[in-house]
Amino acid sequence: MENKMSKKIDTAKRSLALHKKHRGKLAVMSKAPLKNMKDLALVYTPGVGAVSSLIAVHKEKAREYTMKGNSIAVVSDGSAVLGLGNLGPEAALPVMEGKCLLFKQFADIDAFPIVLDTQDPEEIIRTVKLIAPGFGGINLEDISAPRCFMIEERLKRELSIPVMHDDQHGTAVVILAGLLNALKVVNKKIGDVKIILSGAGAAGTAIAHILILAGATNLRVVDREGVIYAERPNITPEKHELASLSKNATESGTLEEVMSGADVFVGVSAPNLVTEEMVRSMNEPIIFALANPTPEIMPDIAKRGGARVIATGRSDFPNQLNNALVFPGVFRGALDYNLSEITDDMKIRAAKAIAKLIPKPTANRIVPDIFDKRLVKAVSRSMKK
Amino acid sequence: MENKMSKKIDTAKRSLALHKKHRGKLAVMSKAPLKNMKDLALVYTPGVGAVSSLIAVHKEKAREYTMKGNSIAVVSDGSAVLGLGNLGPEAALPVMEGKCLLFKQFADIDAFPIVLDTQDPEEIIRTVKLIAPGFGGINLEDISAPRCFMIEERLKRELSIPVMHDDQHGTAVVILAGLLNALKVVNKKIGDVKIILSGAGAAGTAIAHILILAGATNLRVVDREGVIYAERPNITPEKHELASLSKNATESGTLEEVMSGADVFVGVSAPNLVTEEMVRSMNEPIIFALANPTPEIMPDIAKRGGARVIATGRSDFPNQLNNALVFPGVFRGALDYNLSEITDDMKIRAAKAIAKLIPKPTANRIVPDIFDKRLVKAVSRSMKK
Repeated sequence: MENKMSKKIDTAKRSLALHKKHRGKLAVMSKAPLKNMKDLALVYTPGVGAVSSLIAVHKEKAREYTMKGNSIAVVSDGSAVLGLGNLGPEAALPVMEGKCLLFKQFADIDAFPIVLDTQDPEEIIRTVKLIAPGFGGINLEDISAPRCFMIEERLKRELSIPVMHDDQHGTAVVILAGLLNALKVVNKKIGDVKIILSGAGAAGTAIAHILILAGATNLRVVDREGVIYAERPNITPEKHELASLSKNATESGTLEEVMSGADVFVGVSAPNLVTEEMVRSMNEPIIFALANPTPEIMPDIAKRGGARVIATGRSDFPNQLNNALVFPGVFRGALDYNLSEITDDMKIRAAKAIAKLIPKPTANRIVPDIFDKRLVKAVSRSMKK
Repeated sequence: MENKMSKKIDTAKRSLALHKKHRGKLAVMSKAPLKNMKDLALVYTPGVGAVSSLIAVHKEKAREYTMKGNSIAVVSDGSAVLGLGNLGPEAALPVMEGKCLLFKQFADIDAFPIVLDTQDPEEIIRTVKLIAPGFGGINLEDISAPRCFMIEERLKRELSIPVMHDDQHGTAVVILAGLLNALKVVNKKIGDVKIILSGAGAAGTAIAHILILAGATNLRVVDREGVIYAERPNITPEKHELASLSKNATESGTLEEVMSGADVFVGVSAPNLVTEEMVRSMNEPIIFALANPTPEIMPDIAKRGGARVIATGRSDFPNQLNNALVFPGVFRGALDYNLSEITDDMKIRAAKAIAKLIPKPTANRIVPDIFDKRLVKAVSRSMKK
């Protein structure tokens, strides 16, 4: 325990040092030479005038002749930075830079961080729409629920480039991918299992949707107050929709109560909500405990409770369910196939493509490593029907 | 003439080919390694959380720990793309990318193009303010007059990072630099000469301001309708201000009439407005004919008219007065010295710093080459008093 703590402090210190040394992590570079006046005449005036004139007449040529075809904006208002809360745009910047770096490393996408000095949904929508002409896609990031639902929905509808809130859908896709393979390990089918989903925020809501779309029929979503059911007093519209998704959720109950007899627990909620006994009350349990950095239950405890497959969001345990398995390939595909939106079908195909990379999943290996070279190609191809 | 035309077509063709080959000119890259999970823990989660937490408490640390300290946004609404007119944001993108490339090449600044899907001044102002937290400065570009004046003024006042509309001030600074040295060539002083400025748009207005601030006392600004004087019928507020700057401009007159006896002609207007005879009517003429690509008078004709010093905006004649001499160093200095604005004093110091790089100016060499290695250092240092 002390060792873990000192390792954590060490990582923080080394990360701070690295950020200070490089002054952040991202740089802009030229893809064309600029050594003399002749080069200048091609990359800038007067030559560039021909490119502008062409695009003025054929707007869609911007994808071929400018960086638009390979660039996405990673947009945040800093309202839900990692698990740290509402830290504002400046504090969100290092996270968005990091995200851009992953886009580059894994999918060779030129992503750029845009952090916004507003948390008003209408202003966020307006601003993203106004800066959109220079980008081939928009990755929304670390925007708090429930604002994120409306912001994403509106932008998807009002822009003709793909828009995805990764905290919702990246998470949902990787969980579906992991679940498909975990179910193989225990030899069950998604339509037959009882799934308990703890957490009804941005990620939880998207996970509920994708699980139902992928064939889940028996789902309970639980928040701090217990099972979300349609008749629950003072329920928000978003949670009411969740209740209607999980058709069997007609009654109240605590997390402990509903976990009894369940097959799958998916947590995107808070540390240490689940006990060894709760796991023991389940049926060949699959435990996805994704609260970060401290999961809903530590893997060793879940194992003692009889869990058959355990996954977390952490890199220091087997089966890390990380969005980074998803978003690079999703946007690579969206850009390559010139998609105007990322549909639910595409997300499910992406999840299946990730799962398929592990033909014989085992308890300790349900998803590929994020550095797996096959990953981006498989996911991006799955985006094209 | 035929040769020039075919060269022009060739440049356009080669520029189109280059843009298509690279899909634009700009890429994003990582400054930190990302090869394995250990790297990931430092550049992204969990390590980056420490950086976010630090900045959440000390906002100003974003300049040290993120790319903000070295990045600027190159913002355009596409309303005045090069000399081509109102082509819209997509068509402006290749120009903005080119500009970013120059920022990188000359000043190692990470500049990123932001092209806006609006030409409403209030929306432009609002959008730039909302995306500002991620940037250390804002370079406005190719925004048409008179909207550009209000947009720049408001953003300068309402943001705490430096904002500069380069079409105005980059041009003004390089012209002042050139003029200081051209006057040395003919052994005159700026306070003694009569200057005729043709063009009252974005560049012309800024040039008039900087010339007066630098000591010019006898200035006439001329537009399509002739000399701009305070009592001229139907004069816009912006032009009325120009008239009041040039104190001697109390009477009407054509360009031809006012050029007689003048010492300096500065044109940021239209091709072929000036004849050999008009140059001949001047006094040891200094001719800056900067209309692009075809100047107000071709250098060989100006020479026949007796011009002592001739400059253009073109790279195929001596004395190219190019903004690229100015903006990289100005923003380098603004970022290095953490300036909150770019003042008139700084602009004049920048012009003097550029002029000083040519200690003994001659008719054919009044400013340094834009690839001159001393340039950015000299200009950026001049920004600090």
